[in-house]
Amino acid sequence: MNDPVLPKPHLEVCSSPALLPLTNLTESIVVVIDVLRATSTIATALYNGAAAVIPVATVPDCIAAGKKHQALTAGERDGKTAPGLQYGNSPFAFPRTLIEGKTLALTTTNGTRLLHQALAARKIITGSFPNFSAVCHYIMNQPHPVILACAGWKDRVNIEDLLFAGAVANRVKEAFTIQCDTAFIAENLYLQYKDDLMTIVKQTSHYERLGRLGMQKDITYCFTFDTAPSLPVLENGRLVNHL
Amino acid sequence: MNDPVLPKPHLEVCSSPALLPLTNLTESIVVVIDVLRATSTIATALYNGAAAVIPVATVPDCIAAGKKHQALTAGERDGKTAPGLQYGNSPFAFPRTLIEGKTLALTTTNGTRLLHQALAARKIITGSFPNFSAVCHYIMNQPHPVILACAGWKDRVNIEDLLFAGAVANRVKEAFTIQCDTAFIAENLYLQYKDDLMTIVKQTSHYERLGRLGMQKDITYCFTFDTAPSLPVLENGRLVNHL
Repeated sequence: MNDPVLPKPHLEVCSSPALLPLTNLTESIVVVIDVLRATSTIATALYNGAAAVIPVATVPDCIAAGKKHQALTAGERDGKTAPGLQYGNSPFAFPRTLIEGKTLALTTTNGTRLLHQALAARKIITGSFPNFSAVCHYIMNQPHPVILACAGWKDRVNIEDLLFAGAVANRVKEAFTIQCDTAFIAENLYLQYKDDLMTIVKQTSHYERLGRLGMQKDITYCFTFDTAPSLPVLENGRLVNHL
Repeated sequence: MNDPVLPKPHLEVCSSPALLPLTNLTESIVVVIDVLRATSTIATALYNGAAAVIPVATVPDCIAAGKKHQALTAGERDGKTAPGLQYGNSPFAFPRTLIEGKTLALTTTNGTRLLHQALAARKIITGSFPNFSAVCHYIMNQPHPVILACAGWKDRVNIEDLLFAGAVANRVKEAFTIQCDTAFIAENLYLQYKDDLMTIVKQTSHYERLGRLGMQKDITYCFTFDTAPSLPVLENGRLVNHL
């Protein structure tokens, strides 16, 4: 628990990786958010017992990491498992029977890029609805400033990541000083739709892309709270579960 | 009126100048939005008969433009009329008795910077609540894509500019194709607060800064619709009224 006499640390929401240079990275805990589907899949693989998830930027990097670390390889391009990799990006691709004790090399576009951009941070964790409460509990009980960093889509703001940031801001706000209009906008969006997240999700540009690819089951999962309690923390280039 | 057979042009909302490079500037009409107070003051000065407003970035540039164009000079630093300039940034500083027929050199930080960043656009206009309907009417009745570009605060997203973008999106959406999550977020914010804009304005980081400086009258004015119907269009570095 924070000592009530201490000033509360700051929390801010960064709606696009292009805005990350405006933040005080080096002092902060960064929560990387890529709801559809990178950080949901990371939370799930770790919850199901993966030893680590290695986020990589490209398919060749993924193949190389797979060999070097004797890791499973996963990633998609244009909605299909990328040539040369073993699995796609779906959280359902990594049940306990497959992933327990294994390392997973995962290539995703927006989430991995943001992870790499945030490397100067004090600490990097990843957040998603499946590990929502674990993330909130962690950030509320540590003394440093927090940046909720949305991966977006090629630097564009997207609804789903901002919605998650808003849900977190709403849950943890008593523990923080918040002087950030984006946090207000995000929380507001969340409060307006919290009783039926799928209503707003269907408005997103990303839903249209994924919906066309038949991923409704993934999408519903990615907007369900606390089905994969885990705390993915980046350590030496690997995300490991600190829960 | 648009021919109903033609495809509707795209409209998007850009929440920070740092995201402007993601847009299709050269094809588009850019509406520069700096609600508190640059674009509100520009609309007002032109509505009150100013021959032109010359937006400049710095105080020395403003002094130079004043001499070169025999213009009044205006701008603030830290909430006060900047040394060497004649007037501050308040829309109330430019009544018809003062400004009619005159040219005004105006230095503002965020709005002017965004105007300069957007110079590659097909056309640049400025928008604010005081000239809301004039802006909406103009963009609905031309065939090009539109970018509603928020000036923000030092590249940070702010509520007031996004709120105005949301109000415009809501008014004009039937005339456009909108595939932009930020437009949805902005419209949503506007719809939630439209019956009492001051409620949300008081939540903004900017309100706290301006409120401290005793500018409540300016703020109320800057959130009032259609008090200064004008259409500021950038032509050779000068904003002139096309209404």
